[in-house]
Amino acid sequence: MKAVVFDNDLKLDTNYPKPIPQEGEALIKVLLAGICNTDYEITKGYMGYVGILGHEFVGVVEKVNSSNPDEQKWVGKRVVAEISYGCDDPNCEWCAKKNYRHCPERHTLGIWKKDGCFAEYMTMPVNVLFEVPDNVPNEQAVFVEPLAAACEISEQLHIEPTAKVLVLGDGKLVLTTALTLSAQNLDVMLVGKHQNKLDIAKAQGVKTQLLNEFKSEKIYDVVVEATGTASGFETSMSLTKPRGVLVLKSTVATGKELNLAPIVIDEITVLGSRCGQFGPALRLLKNNRIDFKPFISGIYGIDDAIEAFEANKSKDSIKILIKMD
Amino acid sequence: MKAVVFDNDLKLDTNYPKPIPQEGEALIKVLLAGICNTDYEITKGYMGYVGILGHEFVGVVEKVNSSNPDEQKWVGKRVVAEISYGCDDPNCEWCAKKNYRHCPERHTLGIWKKDGCFAEYMTMPVNVLFEVPDNVPNEQAVFVEPLAAACEISEQLHIEPTAKVLVLGDGKLVLTTALTLSAQNLDVMLVGKHQNKLDIAKAQGVKTQLLNEFKSEKIYDVVVEATGTASGFETSMSLTKPRGVLVLKSTVATGKELNLAPIVIDEITVLGSRCGQFGPALRLLKNNRIDFKPFISGIYGIDDAIEAFEANKSKDSIKILIKMD
Repeated sequence: MKAVVFDNDLKLDTNYPKPIPQEGEALIKVLLAGICNTDYEITKGYMGYVGILGHEFVGVVEKVNSSNPDEQKWVGKRVVAEISYGCDDPNCEWCAKKNYRHCPERHTLGIWKKDGCFAEYMTMPVNVLFEVPDNVPNEQAVFVEPLAAACEISEQLHIEPTAKVLVLGDGKLVLTTALTLSAQNLDVMLVGKHQNKLDIAKAQGVKTQLLNEFKSEKIYDVVVEATGTASGFETSMSLTKPRGVLVLKSTVATGKELNLAPIVIDEITVLGSRCGQFGPALRLLKNNRIDFKPFISGIYGIDDAIEAFEANKSKDSIKILIKMD
Repeated sequence: MKAVVFDNDLKLDTNYPKPIPQEGEALIKVLLAGICNTDYEITKGYMGYVGILGHEFVGVVEKVNSSNPDEQKWVGKRVVAEISYGCDDPNCEWCAKKNYRHCPERHTLGIWKKDGCFAEYMTMPVNVLFEVPDNVPNEQAVFVEPLAAACEISEQLHIEPTAKVLVLGDGKLVLTTALTLSAQNLDVMLVGKHQNKLDIAKAQGVKTQLLNEFKSEKIYDVVVEATGTASGFETSMSLTKPRGVLVLKSTVATGKELNLAPIVIDEITVLGSRCGQFGPALRLLKNNRIDFKPFISGIYGIDDAIEAFEANKSKDSIKILIKMD
């Protein structure tokens, strides 16, 4: 089958072996997949991953390797899948809570010990599959993974409805986060550098402001920072009011010279936030609370996947999708 | 009067003007004061402070500048005082909650815009005074400020009684924190480098272990870090379990090269924690829950205050006190 493989360099392999589902796994025909910044980071060495890239997808189950009739019911369904699965040992506290992403024995789609979704076929355990509601088209469903990551903030943190929430930046995860918090009726201000990107959030009810017109004040109860840069972190600290919460959403932050004293002086909470569970994200999509159409900067066939990766590097690009058939 | 003054260098001034209490302030005759690491940091330039040093004390009110009979009642009482006071504007959200330490217009004893307690006399507003219970001797009462800072963790964070709590280090604030959490019936492990210091906590019920015998495992729900060093922070991150809390207790952390990605990957909460309110700290002292006698490495008269500062630099020293009369 065709697959986008990273192994020192990124290439389209047209003869990659079709995966065989293990016991409890589904074989999924991938319909549409999305390129994420994490995919780029992997091509620069993040996680030391080698294999098929990709973790954002929607597909159809072709086969299930299981004698359990409940699991066989997945065949023919249009699905998405949470990207990490765990050991499923009943004694694993993380698997017991379905927090597979923290299981020490986890596998993560296209990131850690598990081939990803930039291919014609993939496999995942049925216990991390979610059926896509009929009214949600593939072009929306493919956004469920970053949408769940944005929903994760509400899973970790109670944000009071009167809180002042500031979201910094205008990358795709940042836009998704601003729209998600706003979809939960929170008072969200999005501050970024690119008017065209801010306008996407503005059209869906988020207050926006250009960074160079923004009045810097230490008044925000919750600040979300997803740039992963030292300057972004420091700006965020300077805007978080005493006893407020600074939510960190970027996993790619590396060694930076940082002064942590303001965290202590202002008694700020820094909350690391990663992936999320898919249920609340699918609910937002089903109820049309967020429209991801304006995010789509291009849809490429799998034969043009390398070109798609190049296109996603453009500053004007938001989300590039790869169509598998 | 005699006063220990920092102004480029540290000196004993024997002719410093005796302070005059402003409206709403008490004139306090200082009995006993304690040297804190923050005092040292100030002599190295922290906060840019110039004036009388010191913020840990116990004293007796000699006079109150107020026509309010309720405020006059403080005269003759043995007192301690929270170190920050605010604008007391009814519209100030911090002063309304008595969280004076976050008031933007705050003054902080011996640290920010307010002469400290290493002197024969000092002043503080009566609304930050606390009477010392009769059964608490001066040598215990003088520890109330760092004890309140340790109590602050419980004000900010609900620690479940089944949580595994790790406290790293064996400086005086660290020992105080371990004893305070233990005094609240939490399961505390203290890991440090000096057996003699660990023994102080061990004698009062805290589990202790030497760092070089300690098995490093990512299993702690709450880790308290007060070294303010990059390596201490990174060690703490490596011991905090996913979704756990890393409490930062040091205000003196400066620019360090830090990798924040583990915070996001493990979804850790980093909680900055500073000073605390005095009520719960005085309750611990009144009920003899913690004995600070073993902390005292020496008591110097004010005439020997500079020597006391030198003595406090010794690695074996824990707390040096200055007696004013």
